[in-house]
Amino acid sequence: MNVPIKSTLDPEQQRITGDALRASVVDLIDLSLIAKQAHWNVLGTHFRSVHLALDELVSAAREFTDSAAERATAIGVSPDGRAATVAKEAAGLEFPDGWQQDTEVINAIVDNLTTVIRRFRERIAATEKADPVTQDLFIEIAARLEQLHWMWQAQLSTA
Amino acid sequence: MNVPIKSTLDPEQQRITGDALRASVVDLIDLSLIAKQAHWNVLGTHFRSVHLALDELVSAAREFTDSAAERATAIGVSPDGRAATVAKEAAGLEFPDGWQQDTEVINAIVDNLTTVIRRFRERIAATEKADPVTQDLFIEIAARLEQLHWMWQAQLSTA
Amino acid sequence: MNVPIKSTLDPEQQRITGDALRASVVDLIDLSLIAKQAHWNVLGTHFRSVHLALDELVSAAREFTDSAAERATAIGVSPDGRAATVAKEAAGLEFPDGWQQDTEVINAIVDNLTTVIRRFRERIAATEKADPVTQDLFIEIAARLEQLHWMWQAQLSTA
Amino acid sequence: MNVPIKSTLDPEQQRITGDALRASVVDLIDLSLIAKQAHWNVLGTHFRSVHLALDELVSAAREFTDSAAERATAIGVSPDGRAATVAKEAAGLEFPDGWQQDTEVINAIVDNLTTVIRRFRERIAATEKADPVTQDLFIEIAARLEQLHWMWQAQLSTA
Amino acid sequence: MNVPIKSTLDPEQQRITGDALRASVVDLIDLSLIAKQAHWNVLGTHFRSVHLALDELVSAAREFTDSAAERATAIGVSPDGRAATVAKEAAGLEFPDGWQQDTEVINAIVDNLTTVIRRFRERIAATEKADPVTQDLFIEIAARLEQLHWMWQAQLSTA
Amino acid sequence: MNVPIKSTLDPEQQRITGDALRASVVDLIDLSLIAKQAHWNVLGTHFRSVHLALDELVSAAREFTDSAAERATAIGVSPDGRAATVAKEAAGLEFPDGWQQDTEVINAIVDNLTTVIRRFRERIAATEKADPVTQDLFIEIAARLEQLHWMWQAQLSTA
Amino acid sequence: MNVPIKSTLDPEQQRITGDALRASVVDLIDLSLIAKQAHWNVLGTHFRSVHLALDELVSAAREFTDSAAERATAIGVSPDGRAATVAKEAAGLEFPDGWQQDTEVINAIVDNLTTVIRRFRERIAATEKADPVTQDLFIEIAARLEQLHWMWQAQLSTA
Amino acid sequence: MNVPIKSTLDPEQQRITGDALRASVVDLIDLSLIAKQAHWNVLGTHFRSVHLALDELVSAAREFTDSAAERATAIGVSPDGRAATVAKEAAGLEFPDGWQQDTEVINAIVDNLTTVIRRFRERIAATEKADPVTQDLFIEIAARLEQLHWMWQAQLSTA
Amino acid sequence: MNVPIKSTLDPEQQRITGDALRASVVDLIDLSLIAKQAHWNVLGTHFRSVHLALDELVSAAREFTDSAAERATAIGVSPDGRAATVAKEAAGLEFPDGWQQDTEVINAIVDNLTTVIRRFRERIAATEKADPVTQDLFIEIAARLEQLHWMWQAQLSTA
Amino acid sequence: MNVPIKSTLDPEQQRITGDALRASVVDLIDLSLIAKQAHWNVLGTHFRSVHLALDELVSAAREFTDSAAERATAIGVSPDGRAATVAKEAAGLEFPDGWQQDTEVINAIVDNLTTVIRRFRERIAATEKADPVTQDLFIEIAARLEQLHWMWQAQLSTA
Amino acid sequence: MNVPIKSTLDPEQQRITGDALRASVVDLIDLSLIAKQAHWNVLGTHFRSVHLALDELVSAAREFTDSAAERATAIGVSPDGRAATVAKEAAGLEFPDGWQQDTEVINAIVDNLTTVIRRFRERIAATEKADPVTQDLFIEIAARLEQLHWMWQAQLSTA
Amino acid sequence: MNVPIKSTLDPEQQRITGDALRASVVDLIDLSLIAKQAHWNVLGTHFRSVHLALDELVSAAREFTDSAAERATAIGVSPDGRAATVAKEAAGLEFPDGWQQDTEVINAIVDNLTTVIRRFRERIAATEKADPVTQDLFIEIAARLEQLHWMWQAQLSTA
Repeated sequence: MNVPIKSTLDPEQQRITGDALRASVVDLIDLSLIAKQAHWNVLGTHFRSVHLALDELVSAAREFTDSAAERATAIGVSPDGRAATVAKEAAGLEFPDGWQQDTEVINAIVDNLTTVIRRFRERIAATEKADPVTQDLFIEIAARLEQLHWMWQAQLSTA
Repeated sequence: MNVPIKSTLDPEQQRITGDALRASVVDLIDLSLIAKQAHWNVLGTHFRSVHLALDELVSAAREFTDSAAERATAIGVSPDGRAATVAKEAAGLEFPDGWQQDTEVINAIVDNLTTVIRRFRERIAATEKADPVTQDLFIEIAARLEQLHWMWQAQLSTA
Repeated sequence: MNVPIKSTLDPEQQRITGDALRASVVDLIDLSLIAKQAHWNVLGTHFRSVHLALDELVSAAREFTDSAAERATAIGVSPDGRAATVAKEAAGLEFPDGWQQDTEVINAIVDNLTTVIRRFRERIAATEKADPVTQDLFIEIAARLEQLHWMWQAQLSTA
Repeated sequence: MNVPIKSTLDPEQQRITGDALRASVVDLIDLSLIAKQAHWNVLGTHFRSVHLALDELVSAAREFTDSAAERATAIGVSPDGRAATVAKEAAGLEFPDGWQQDTEVINAIVDNLTTVIRRFRERIAATEKADPVTQDLFIEIAARLEQLHWMWQAQLSTA
Repeated sequence: MNVPIKSTLDPEQQRITGDALRASVVDLIDLSLIAKQAHWNVLGTHFRSVHLALDELVSAAREFTDSAAERATAIGVSPDGRAATVAKEAAGLEFPDGWQQDTEVINAIVDNLTTVIRRFRERIAATEKADPVTQDLFIEIAARLEQLHWMWQAQLSTA
Repeated sequence: MNVPIKSTLDPEQQRITGDALRASVVDLIDLSLIAKQAHWNVLGTHFRSVHLALDELVSAAREFTDSAAERATAIGVSPDGRAATVAKEAAGLEFPDGWQQDTEVINAIVDNLTTVIRRFRERIAATEKADPVTQDLFIEIAARLEQLHWMWQAQLSTA
Repeated sequence: MNVPIKSTLDPEQQRITGDALRASVVDLIDLSLIAKQAHWNVLGTHFRSVHLALDELVSAAREFTDSAAERATAIGVSPDGRAATVAKEAAGLEFPDGWQQDTEVINAIVDNLTTVIRRFRERIAATEKADPVTQDLFIEIAARLEQLHWMWQAQLSTA
Repeated sequence: MNVPIKSTLDPEQQRITGDALRASVVDLIDLSLIAKQAHWNVLGTHFRSVHLALDELVSAAREFTDSAAERATAIGVSPDGRAATVAKEAAGLEFPDGWQQDTEVINAIVDNLTTVIRRFRERIAATEKADPVTQDLFIEIAARLEQLHWMWQAQLSTA
Repeated sequence: MNVPIKSTLDPEQQRITGDALRASVVDLIDLSLIAKQAHWNVLGTHFRSVHLALDELVSAAREFTDSAAERATAIGVSPDGRAATVAKEAAGLEFPDGWQQDTEVINAIVDNLTTVIRRFRERIAATEKADPVTQDLFIEIAARLEQLHWMWQAQLSTA
Repeated sequence: MNVPIKSTLDPEQQRITGDALRASVVDLIDLSLIAKQAHWNVLGTHFRSVHLALDELVSAAREFTDSAAERATAIGVSPDGRAATVAKEAAGLEFPDGWQQDTEVINAIVDNLTTVIRRFRERIAATEKADPVTQDLFIEIAARLEQLHWMWQAQLSTA
Repeated sequence: MNVPIKSTLDPEQQRITGDALRASVVDLIDLSLIAKQAHWNVLGTHFRSVHLALDELVSAAREFTDSAAERATAIGVSPDGRAATVAKEAAGLEFPDGWQQDTEVINAIVDNLTTVIRRFRERIAATEKADPVTQDLFIEIAARLEQLHWMWQAQLSTA
Repeated sequence: MNVPIKSTLDPEQQRITGDALRASVVDLIDLSLIAKQAHWNVLGTHFRSVHLALDELVSAAREFTDSAAERATAIGVSPDGRAATVAKEAAGLEFPDGWQQDTEVINAIVDNLTTVIRRFRERIAATEKADPVTQDLFIEIAARLEQLHWMWQAQLSTA
């Protein structure tokens, strides 16, 4: 890989941090596309609430995609967020084809958030030594995703 | 395909219009991901201008994606904008891996816009009889993309 | 009818277009009053979502009423949106008296939207030759009403 | 009448207040439709001033319609603002068909405001004992209508 | 009680009005804390609607707390809104510990609003002679709380 | 006096209410001019706080002047707020010439507010029968002036 | 003419559409300069209304000038809006020198709008086959100009 | 006069400039009170235009009053804008009692503006040597008043 | 305790973090109520500065209360912010009854802030291993409280 | 020339100032049309920067056109900004036909600004005695044009 | 000095004006750094007022720095605002090290403002012939600094 | 050094953290002055991009200066940001005198950012134990500076 942007990290720190950021970009684009897909295809009496809540998730995912990708560039690593890359390197997020019942949508979003959060928790641990600046970004992302995780779970839970 | 949303179009009109809209969703997501990719990876003395102009293209592409997808739902057709679908059904848009020189980015964006505009021109013709409401959306999209097409070309042209 | 405003249309074009616009004004006022009626009288667990969604429908109907009425004046035709006229020339929109269950409200709104959209589809066809400027307004109205039609249907559909 | 919303008023208070509010809803919708009708059909050298002033009247009438209707619901009374109800229960507001001279419009608006204000003055008296909360709303409505009454009269008066 | 702020009321008027205002401050803080508690602990398919509606209630309660407390100071009476005072002088508002089902939350909010409104109705009567300025504030508070009372009831009622 | 604006009040009600409103206009202009005078001439370590607080008082006084004057017109009474009228009919508000110490300014503002509030309290009583709409305006004015009265007193009081 | 911007239209379509757009740019600049001229030179009792309404016309004309000129560039045609070009290619719009009476101004604006609208009506027909995207822009311009045409006529008409 | 604010002007410059500023404060307050008086008492078919235009004049006069008064303080001179001072030192501005015809209002405003502008022209000359900073403020005031002077004259002129 | 929200923390991490967050909610509500209490009851020449500064403290405390409570829900722990809980579990914050001198208020706020900050410092240490996401929130809270701590101290210190 | 607006200048002052303002209107319209022409026709790698900077120049030129024209009216002189007048009285500003290279555009803008600034410098001298109010406007225009002059030159200079 | 920006001033005018502007840049940066220093280090009961007022001074100083520096570039003179230049060429502004009592801060700000204003007064005189455009900027700066000078003095003065 | 602000850190923590913060204040002021210097003196075809990007850097540097200085005060340490201190304690940032070519400016900014970032990286390590709250601020500063570092590098790099 050509590295025209000088990093203030040493090569090993840069490799660990760069890998975590590139994978984050892929996860977050995947999450944003799934949330948009659900936004359009949801059906049921909770349509309006779920439709609106999904756009908040899209906004969060898009904003964090940009933060992660620009953090990668800041440490001299080129991010890759093209459709083929996302399709190939996607890590298990899933959403079915066609119209979906609102309760199914909620379940799917909770599951996908659980997966993504788990991976960000790992990245927080992985970058603690390598780059506290990037770790701070991962903490911010996890905090927001966990807040959304609660809100989506709360729609299915019983007291 | 399950069709829980009643359309005000007859089946043949719906089929023609729905196909055009579903393909538009794929094209526009692809375009938005490529523009973001370029936004992050551009290098060169024109970095700032190109970086900012790419975000305007991203905004346009995202807004039109939503319009096309919600027009599909309005005629009872489920849109599909997941990463795998985009990767599989993408129609020839291309952007290379890694850091890119600014002039190369401009060339790539012009080429991708040329491809996308040509396809929207075909859809304007195809939906004239099938659904003038959808045609009007395609005209609006083409108008904006052709405006951007000029602006990106203008950066490479000589008087 | 006294015609103190000169039209750029010939008399036959003006007659066809003016009739379509005057009927649109009546339909859209009727729709806006029904949506407000529902906004106040809805009951049930989906109260908040339905209550808020109805105000978006009111806003759309009011804005289009103004557009249609001022398009009539622009072609030299006096619009009539007084309560008695609306009550007399109303074309089949219906909403029952008193408090209403949320699911019943949703059904009633979907039915009324279906009726109104069908009439705008006819007006799009009727004005294509007579006045493309007015046709363009009808296309814009239909596009928005069909989007709302999907959203209200989606609340009752199952995948 | 089914009363699914519990009122904090006793039945007699509720009956007096509810009747006043339901009649207010009808009056105010009638006033807003007449003001819009005038907004579209006014002619003459004062067109622009009158056209704009009428939209301020429409805004006031619509906002108070909502306040009166939602005050009715707050005391457990279902409001009725459908076109047929307004046409049937309208209390003497009038506006002629077709294009209108600006001075005629001003006269008609002053007359209609005089009628509506007189009725609100009666409602202020009627609800003083029955419900001071509703009376306060009627006072607010009367204050604004009387201010507009002055402004419309001022256009016709001489010093 | 030390009274460093001169009142424009006589001592008896000041005592009646001051007592009503001090009790209002306690009730409204209690209501705002309960609404926040519910905002965090609600569960169920209506999570999003209820969660958002509760924050509107919090805003209303907080704004009226400030109005009532500053009205007390304006008539020379020191308000007391400390936690211990609220806990001790609370007048029967209740909300259970831990996670709560959305329907239970709605019921609890309706009950608490019924209690608070009844007390403000009494204060409107009590201050009519003592201080019409304070009465006007209580009327404004009652109007808003009764509007919210309808909206929360409407979620549980059937037509 | 020529009365080209018709009032909805009877002559006696109009006379009582009109006198109260015309006197209010004079008082409030006088108050606003005094507050501006103080705003410019205050000296002392509390300059900034007092200077800013005086502009809030100016804003309140100007807004209420307009409300009182336009309420007079709404009941067919011509208001008079010219400098000579204010100087002649002023009711005891006073502020000395030249630079003033901040503590003296605070004392003067408290005294002037006490005078003005007492007069509005009398007007509230005087208009209760004559015109509840005007009374409501006087209640609103008194409420705000009494709030400011507390704030200005608080700067001089000790616990 | 040098054509450094590639068009998505074929040469004949480009020629027809480009000619229509270049002429539109000239007309709209001419209209905006005349409206400003009138804005400054109008006299008479309707000064304020006419002065303000003229600035709305200026805004509309300037915005459409930009749209037409940038549509020309988007199809590869260089627009020409220099003063000499406008003066030479102007198509009959006229406004006299020096101060003008308000009624004369209104007449002149109505006449100029009639001329410009007629030309846009011809362009709508001319570009229907050549370029529906440009036709859509002409429809939008005609719709707005015809609305203004009504408003300016209405100031001179009688019912 | 006590002078607790040190000036950067010498005593003679300060005297000339201070006198001009103190007189400006009186003139501008007088002008603002007259414009408000007219704003309330105007009658006639041009009511709305004149009513609104007068509030623009009030805003200008109030803003310049503050500028002139704070410029006086900045050079160590205490401004005096109390009602009695304005009434006593007023320099010939006049406006009659009671309701006024719109044309009479326009004439009165033009006359008063002529008087005030003449005095500011004299102050521009008087302060050229004494204080160019204050002169600049007078130039700014004159520019705005002369613009308003034209607009008010234009309502009475004929071409 | 029922735990319907799944946490991404293990039970021990959840217990430590949940305890810290629940105690934070209590502290921050207590602090916000004390700051409001002071906001209303402060007297003295620094009234305005202290009154305004206290509302900034209220805003900060309320915002952090929400953040801490919603962080608790995000890790599956139900927060408790009811008045009785706050009164019972309060950790030593104190503010006296009745009107208070401004200097006493400043002292009390500094003391309460010192107490609360010390407790957040302990929570930063306690959650470092248990949950870095929650720790980051505590760091943000401490940073803002320490900034306010300086500002309140600065009012009492001498150089 | 008919002069229905009275000037506060004597005839000679009015003639000098009026000539300067009328010529300014022509220059500034010419400049704004040239800047728009360049905005549309620029090509080259600096397209985006130049395209945006030209719109800032258009905004400045349009705003100053209005200021100069309304200053002319304020001194009783009718401005003339019609296309034919601009074309005939234009003072040497030039811009070629068709697409233009970015560096050529920058050169042309610098040259035109140099010409216009020189003329405003002469007008500053010419109006010093005749009318300091108009001179102040010319100084403001020159200041802004010289700032733009630097920015456009800076693009071509070398250190 | 290399002069790549052409000036519209002759060499002598440029030298006089450029020297004045370069010295202004140094003075204003020095003033802004001192005001920030005071903003952080002020102690005492007036902390909040002084802290806020200092940030207004910082804003003014920074804005004028930019205006002076860009005016220098506009006349072809390179400004120098680097720390070492400011430290070396500073003209007597002083502020002590460490925490400062509020009254001492006020004294120091008044003294520094007196110094800076005196120097701008000299520059106003110096540039009157050399460049009235620059003189106008110095007048604007002096006007604002003298206003601030009064406000800071007022905090220390007695009536 | 006098320490009138009590810190919640122990003396050793305070010393380490305070030294880091005081040095940060100096670095950031130096950076902001250099960026402004470049903003004014840059020349070349990239003038506009570089000129605008430099103001973003100035904004960032100024905001962080304030954060660092107020963090110092929050831990009881007096910050020092006077010009002489910055000049004396500056740590190697450099920018040449006079006009500068755009490419040279970019090189200089990249070099200065590299220096400043390296120092913040050291401070992140140094304060990890001493004060995690301050460390969090340094992480935020480093994150933003490294983002800018990439953007400035990108203008010089090749793919």
